[in-house]
Amino acid sequence: MPDAKNDNIFLVGLMGAGKTTIGRLLARKLGKRFVDSDHEIEARTGASIPWIFEIEGEASFRRREADMIRELTGQHGIVLATGGGAVLDPANRKLLAERGTVIYLRAGINSILQRTAHDRNRPLLQTADPRKKLEELLAQREPLYREVADLVIDTGRPNVQSMVGTILEQMAACVKERPGTAMNQTKRINLDVALGSRSYPIVIGSAVLDDAGLVARHLGSGKAAIVTNATIAPLYLERVAAPIRAAGHEVIEIVLPDGEQYKTWESLNLIFDALLANKCDRKTTLVALGGGVIGDMTGFAAATYMRGVPFVQVPTTLLAQVDSSVGGKTGINHPLGKNMIGAFYQPRAVLADIGTLDTLPSRELSAGLAEVIKHGAILDAGFFDWIEQNIDKLVARDPDALAHAIARSCEIKAEVVRKDERESGLRAVLNFGHTFGHAIEAGLGYGNWLHGEAVGCGMVMAADLSQRLGYIDSAAVERVRALVKAAGLPVVAPDLGAERWIELMEVDKKNEGGQIKFILLKPLGSPCVTSVARETLLETLAACTA
Amino acid sequence: MPDAKNDNIFLVGLMGAGKTTIGRLLARKLGKRFVDSDHEIEARTGASIPWIFEIEGEASFRRREADMIRELTGQHGIVLATGGGAVLDPANRKLLAERGTVIYLRAGINSILQRTAHDRNRPLLQTADPRKKLEELLAQREPLYREVADLVIDTGRPNVQSMVGTILEQMAACVKERPGTAMNQTKRINLDVALGSRSYPIVIGSAVLDDAGLVARHLGSGKAAIVTNATIAPLYLERVAAPIRAAGHEVIEIVLPDGEQYKTWESLNLIFDALLANKCDRKTTLVALGGGVIGDMTGFAAATYMRGVPFVQVPTTLLAQVDSSVGGKTGINHPLGKNMIGAFYQPRAVLADIGTLDTLPSRELSAGLAEVIKHGAILDAGFFDWIEQNIDKLVARDPDALAHAIARSCEIKAEVVRKDERESGLRAVLNFGHTFGHAIEAGLGYGNWLHGEAVGCGMVMAADLSQRLGYIDSAAVERVRALVKAAGLPVVAPDLGAERWIELMEVDKKNEGGQIKFILLKPLGSPCVTSVARETLLETLAACTA
Repeated sequence: MPDAKNDNIFLVGLMGAGKTTIGRLLARKLGKRFVDSDHEIEARTGASIPWIFEIEGEASFRRREADMIRELTGQHGIVLATGGGAVLDPANRKLLAERGTVIYLRAGINSILQRTAHDRNRPLLQTADPRKKLEELLAQREPLYREVADLVIDTGRPNVQSMVGTILEQMAACVKERPGTAMNQTKRINLDVALGSRSYPIVIGSAVLDDAGLVARHLGSGKAAIVTNATIAPLYLERVAAPIRAAGHEVIEIVLPDGEQYKTWESLNLIFDALLANKCDRKTTLVALGGGVIGDMTGFAAATYMRGVPFVQVPTTLLAQVDSSVGGKTGINHPLGKNMIGAFYQPRAVLADIGTLDTLPSRELSAGLAEVIKHGAILDAGFFDWIEQNIDKLVARDPDALAHAIARSCEIKAEVVRKDERESGLRAVLNFGHTFGHAIEAGLGYGNWLHGEAVGCGMVMAADLSQRLGYIDSAAVERVRALVKAAGLPVVAPDLGAERWIELMEVDKKNEGGQIKFILLKPLGSPCVTSVARETLLETLAACTA
Repeated sequence: MPDAKNDNIFLVGLMGAGKTTIGRLLARKLGKRFVDSDHEIEARTGASIPWIFEIEGEASFRRREADMIRELTGQHGIVLATGGGAVLDPANRKLLAERGTVIYLRAGINSILQRTAHDRNRPLLQTADPRKKLEELLAQREPLYREVADLVIDTGRPNVQSMVGTILEQMAACVKERPGTAMNQTKRINLDVALGSRSYPIVIGSAVLDDAGLVARHLGSGKAAIVTNATIAPLYLERVAAPIRAAGHEVIEIVLPDGEQYKTWESLNLIFDALLANKCDRKTTLVALGGGVIGDMTGFAAATYMRGVPFVQVPTTLLAQVDSSVGGKTGINHPLGKNMIGAFYQPRAVLADIGTLDTLPSRELSAGLAEVIKHGAILDAGFFDWIEQNIDKLVARDPDALAHAIARSCEIKAEVVRKDERESGLRAVLNFGHTFGHAIEAGLGYGNWLHGEAVGCGMVMAADLSQRLGYIDSAAVERVRALVKAAGLPVVAPDLGAERWIELMEVDKKNEGGQIKFILLKPLGSPCVTSVARETLLETLAACTA
C-alpha cells in the first residue's frame, strides 16, 4: 500500500479559487479519483449547501462537513476538493495534514469576485458587500490554509493546464526533498508577478537549489552563465551548476568580489568580458546567484548584453528574497548616487531557497528584515502587527516564520509592481525609508552600512518626519523604532551635517523639479508621497542623528 | 488679398488615405471651406464616379476632373480633397503646386485595404487582387505625389485630431523657413514609426534645427541635455540650444570627443557625470545632436540614466538620418565586439535637418549612402533601381534626391522595426553587409574604416556569397559592386587572414548556437538569413580581400 501522504491529494482554499476545476484535471492526469466534499454532502443529504445553511445553520453544516472529511480522508488514491471553511476545524486540519498532500490554491480577492459574481450557490457571499466579506474570510483563513499546506500555488495563471503542470512539477520536487530538518521540508510557496507577457513565477521553499528541473525549466535552449560572488561561490555555486550541467547546458561561472562597493561599471564589465570570451549568444540565460548586489548587477548585464538576454534570479539573502529579486529593478551605483545607472528588466523567474538563509550572517539577516518591516509599514498594518509578534522568531531564523515573511513581502511587492512596473507613481512607495537610507549609504561611502541597515534607520527617520507633519502619533513612531531595533538594525543616523544630508538626498531618482520627495506614513500601514518644508526636515535630522 | 499659396490647401494621396476626413477637420480649424473634387464632379454630372467610369471610361473622367481642378484651384480660402489620380495629369500638378499648399497624405497599403474593404465606390479597386492593384497605383503615383507636395504627412496615426494638429504645426513651420536656396525650403516630410504606445514621428526637411516649436514639443516639462561632439558643437549646438532655451528650458550641453573609437563606457560616463552634476531628474530629456555614434550613446544613456529618461534624435549625418536614428537600437562598443552593450530604447522623435548634410565630409556622405543602398538591396528592388539612376545626384548632394533617399530609407526601416522591434526575426535583415562589415571594423580597429565604408564593402562580400550559393547571378553582384563603388565606398576588403575573419564574425549578435548567420540576397531586393558552409565562406573571403 502506498504511503497515504502521497496517495491522496487534498485541495484547500477559498471558494472560487478553482479547487473543482483544477482538482478534476489533476485527478485525470494522475489517474486518481476526484471527489468534491461539498458535492458529497449534497448527495448524501439530498439538499443543497445553501439550503443546509438556511435551514440548519452554519454550525450544523460544519458538523456534517467534519464527518465527511473524516470519511473521505480515510480513502486512498483520491483528489479531494474541500469546502472553503473546512480548515476552520482543528480536527479537519489534522486529518488533512496526516492523510494526504495538501495543496493550498491561493486566489486574489478580485479574481474570486469575478468568478463568483453570478453564482447563487455561495451562501457566505449573499451579503451587501461581498468584497468585505471575502477580505474577512481571507484574513481569518489564510494562516490556517498555510498551516495545513504542503504546497501553496497561486492561481493567478490564466491557464488551468499550465497550473496543473506546475503543481505536478512542484509535487515531484517535494518528494525528492530531504525530510527531518526543523522546517517542513515539503513546503513550497508559488506566487506570480502578473505583468502580461513579462509575467514570471516566484518559487519560495527549501532545497529549491537542488531542483534541477525547476531551474532548467527557465533556461531556454542555450548556455547558462551563473554570476555570483566570492562569498557565495564556495557555498552554493556547484549545487546550482551541477544539475544545470547535468541537464545538458554549458555553464559559465562568473565570480565577482563581494560587497556593495563593487556594484560598479568595473564589475559589470567583468561579466561582459566573460560572456564575450565564452562566445555567449542571445540565447544565453544569466543566473544571478547571490544577494541584492549580484541580482541588480546581473539583471543589468542581462538587460544590456547584446541589448537583452534572459535572466533568472536565485536570491540567497533575505534582503534579495523579500525585495530586490522581485520587480525588475536592475542597475549599478555611480560615485554621485546609488543605482543611478540601470534599467527596468524583469527576470524569467525568482527561485528563493530558504535554506540559504542558514549561512547568512546575522547582520545581513537583520538588513533583510528592514525590507520586511517596510512592506508592513507602508501597505499592510496587519502584516506589521504580525511582524511585531514574530520578530523574535524571525531573528532566530524560525523557518516557518521566515517563509511567511518572505511570501507576504513578495506578494505585497508583486502587487505594487503589477500596478506600476516603471515607477511612474505608486511604486515609489516602496522607497519608504530609502531617501534617508540612500543618503546614509552615500554619505558614509557605500559598503560601510548595509543597504538594509540604512533603510531601517531611514524608516525611523521617515516615521519621525511623518509625526512632525501630524500624519502619525508618537506611539506609532515608537512602534517603528522598537521594531527596527528588535530586528537588530540601527535607529540613530550618522551626523553628516545638515547641508550634506540635503545635498545627498537631492540626487534621489524620485525627485522632480529640485524638490526632495519623501515617502511617509499616513497613518502606519498607508503611504503618502510628499515634499516637506526645509525647517521640518532639519528638525528630523537633528532629532535622529548623533 | 492673401498669397494664393497660403490661402488654399490641396490634399493629394491615394484613395482611402483620409483626404476627406482630414480635410473637413482641417477646414474647420482654419475657417476655410472644404471642397471634395470627386463630390463636385458627381454633383455637376448627377452621376456617381463608378457610373462615369463604367459608362464613359477613365479617360473621360480624367477630362472632367481636369476641368474641375482648374476651376476649384482658381478659388480662394478652400481646403480641397483631390481624387487619387488627379496628379497623373501634368497640368493638374502645375495648378495644384502654383495655387495652394499641397499636402500629400501618405497611407500604407494595409491601412488603405482596411479602410476601403467594404466600399463599392472605388472603381479602380473592383478587381480580383486589390492589394496588387494598390501596389501598382502607389508605385506609379508616389513620385508624383511627392513632386507636387509641400508637406508629406504619414496617416499612420490612429487619431485624426492629432494628425491635423501635426499638419497645422508643420505648415506654420514651413511658413517661417527661409526661401531661395537650392532646395525647396518648404518641403517637409513626416513619417511615423508605429510602435503602439512607443510610436514616434520622423520629420525630414530643411531648417528643422531652427524650428523651436518642433524641438520643444518633444521635450516635456524638464531640462534638456544636448549631447554632441567636438566637431558638431561649433556648427549646430547653439542653433539647437538657443530656441530650446528661449522656450524656457534649462539646457545642459555635453560635448564628447568625435569618433567611433570614443563609443565607449568612458564617454557614456561623461554623460552620466554631467547629468548628475547638473542634478538632472527623470523629467530631463536627452537630445542627441550628431551622427550614429552620438545617437547610439545618447540613446543608451537615456535608456539607463535613472532606469530611463526620454530622448530625441537630431541626426546630422546621412548615416544617422537614413538608419541609426530610427528604430531604437542604442549602445556602446566593447573591445571584443561592436555594439555589444546596449538596449532597445525608442526616441520620442527623430528630427532630421537636411541642411546639416552641407557640412558633412564626402567620406561620411558616402558612408551614409551605404545604408541607403542596403535598404534598396534587401527590401525594395525598385528603390535600388532609383538609387542607381540617381547615385551621381546623391554624391553631388542634390537636396531633392537626398530628401527622397532619406525618406524612403526611413520608411523601409520603420516598417521593419514596426514588425520586429526587438530583432527576434525579420529585423536581422537590416544587418545585410554588417556581418562582414563589423569584422572589418573590429579587425582594423574601430575608427579606421567608417562604419558605412565597412558595410559598403560588406555588402559586396554578401552579394558575392549570395552568388556562390546560387541566389543571384554575377550581373547582380556587379550591380551591387558598381553602385557601392559609385557611392565612393571601398569594394575590396582588408586581408585579415581567414581565421581572424571567422573569429571576428563569430561574436556577431545574430549568431545562435555557434553558427554565423548571414543576410544574403535571394534575389536582389529580397533578403535571406542563412548559415553557410565554411568552404564557401573561405571562397568569398579569398575573392573579396586584397
